[in-house]
Amino acid sequence: MSTLSPTARSTVRRGAARARTDRGDLYAVLDAGLVGHLGVVVDGTPRVLPTGYGRVDDVLYLHGSTGARSLRESGGAPVCFTVTLLDGVVYARSAMHHSMNYRCAVVHGEARVVMDPAEREVGLVALMEQLAPGSWDAVRRPDRRELAATAVLALDLAEASVKVRTGPPADDERDRRPDARRVWAGVLPVVTTYGTPRPCPELPDGVEVPAHVRDRPQPAPAG
Amino acid sequence: MSTLSPTARSTVRRGAARARTDRGDLYAVLDAGLVGHLGVVVDGTPRVLPTGYGRVDDVLYLHGSTGARSLRESGGAPVCFTVTLLDGVVYARSAMHHSMNYRCAVVHGEARVVMDPAEREVGLVALMEQLAPGSWDAVRRPDRRELAATAVLALDLAEASVKVRTGPPADDERDRRPDARRVWAGVLPVVTTYGTPRPCPELPDGVEVPAHVRDRPQPAPAG
Repeated sequence: MSTLSPTARSTVRRGAARARTDRGDLYAVLDAGLVGHLGVVVDGTPRVLPTGYGRVDDVLYLHGSTGARSLRESGGAPVCFTVTLLDGVVYARSAMHHSMNYRCAVVHGEARVVMDPAEREVGLVALMEQLAPGSWDAVRRPDRRELAATAVLALDLAEASVKVRTGPPADDERDRRPDARRVWAGVLPVVTTYGTPRPCPELPDGVEVPAHVRDRPQPAPAG
Repeated sequence: MSTLSPTARSTVRRGAARARTDRGDLYAVLDAGLVGHLGVVVDGTPRVLPTGYGRVDDVLYLHGSTGARSLRESGGAPVCFTVTLLDGVVYARSAMHHSMNYRCAVVHGEARVVMDPAEREVGLVALMEQLAPGSWDAVRRPDRRELAATAVLALDLAEASVKVRTGPPADDERDRRPDARRVWAGVLPVVTTYGTPRPCPELPDGVEVPAHVRDRPQPAPAG
């Protein structure tokens, strides 16, 4: 497994002990998420919007309406795409050391507008597999008009960083001494699960929940 | 309850039907989250990092190490702070109409570095209440050295937008006709819950999980 080569932008400076440098860690965080936050610069000011994504090897695909300004501004422009998975609230013996357990991937780069129809389909399939695995083969695929209204962007996973915090609080020694104030410390897990599928009210009788929805694996917890 | 007055930046353009204009909707989304994504511009490129926050009336407080570049760059500079709560995967009858149910608040503004000690404490208490309600009164509070290492930023909730998607897929009429392909459609809920508290392994015997952790209300689901 190759490593992540940090650049000035992607070097983890704060809490460097939490940095992961294995490309597999990057894939694991990205593959476990459903939503990322895309940052672009518009008129000199930042915009951060949530969006779905999909990954194929070392390329991240994003999509959106061809009318969306944040996407139009992204083509060829520097973007930052961040995926954060929250795993727990860290209760410490001091206010200062309260924290969160989380997995976070940050990708920097210039998003490329994908024009090639074959790669556009690769990207759309990847986006669908991330959001709703199995749906691409089950539903009506995009027609010409729908495709024309959809922009697909590609972001190379060339410049990226991963930060992971796990485990109990890292309290000061003074707060852990036997004569210190007796304060509970630990982690309250934050757990994300899929619930019971809710059928669309307009569904005709007899259309059952398909296996790819009913048996969808629960989101991957922290490793 | 006052309304949100959209500016050019905060006007919801895509999916305007999902825009909410009541200030109470903004508060509800912000108050239900634990993590937001802060966007800043550094050397002309966007940076998006996850961070905790707290709200007091119409002010959002952020904090971080005084050594963190993203925070240093935020003081007086335009920032974008986005909180997204994911509520479900929307399975449609067509690929195009697959979507997510979510609640999202986007705040634009210039972050102000808080210097006044009293307001700094207000901000830190608000941050703690959001992350770990009840902890401020239970644990050792920051000492002079810890306070000196902590930057507190304030962001006015003056320019903000809220977008909420709920309910079943919005499929085309052609895909809902009796003669259309029979495809299951509906929503797979995404549910975030707190699990069972995990005590720090170094905790002395007899320190029980306190009520503010044990009885912490589950995260507010979509309204």
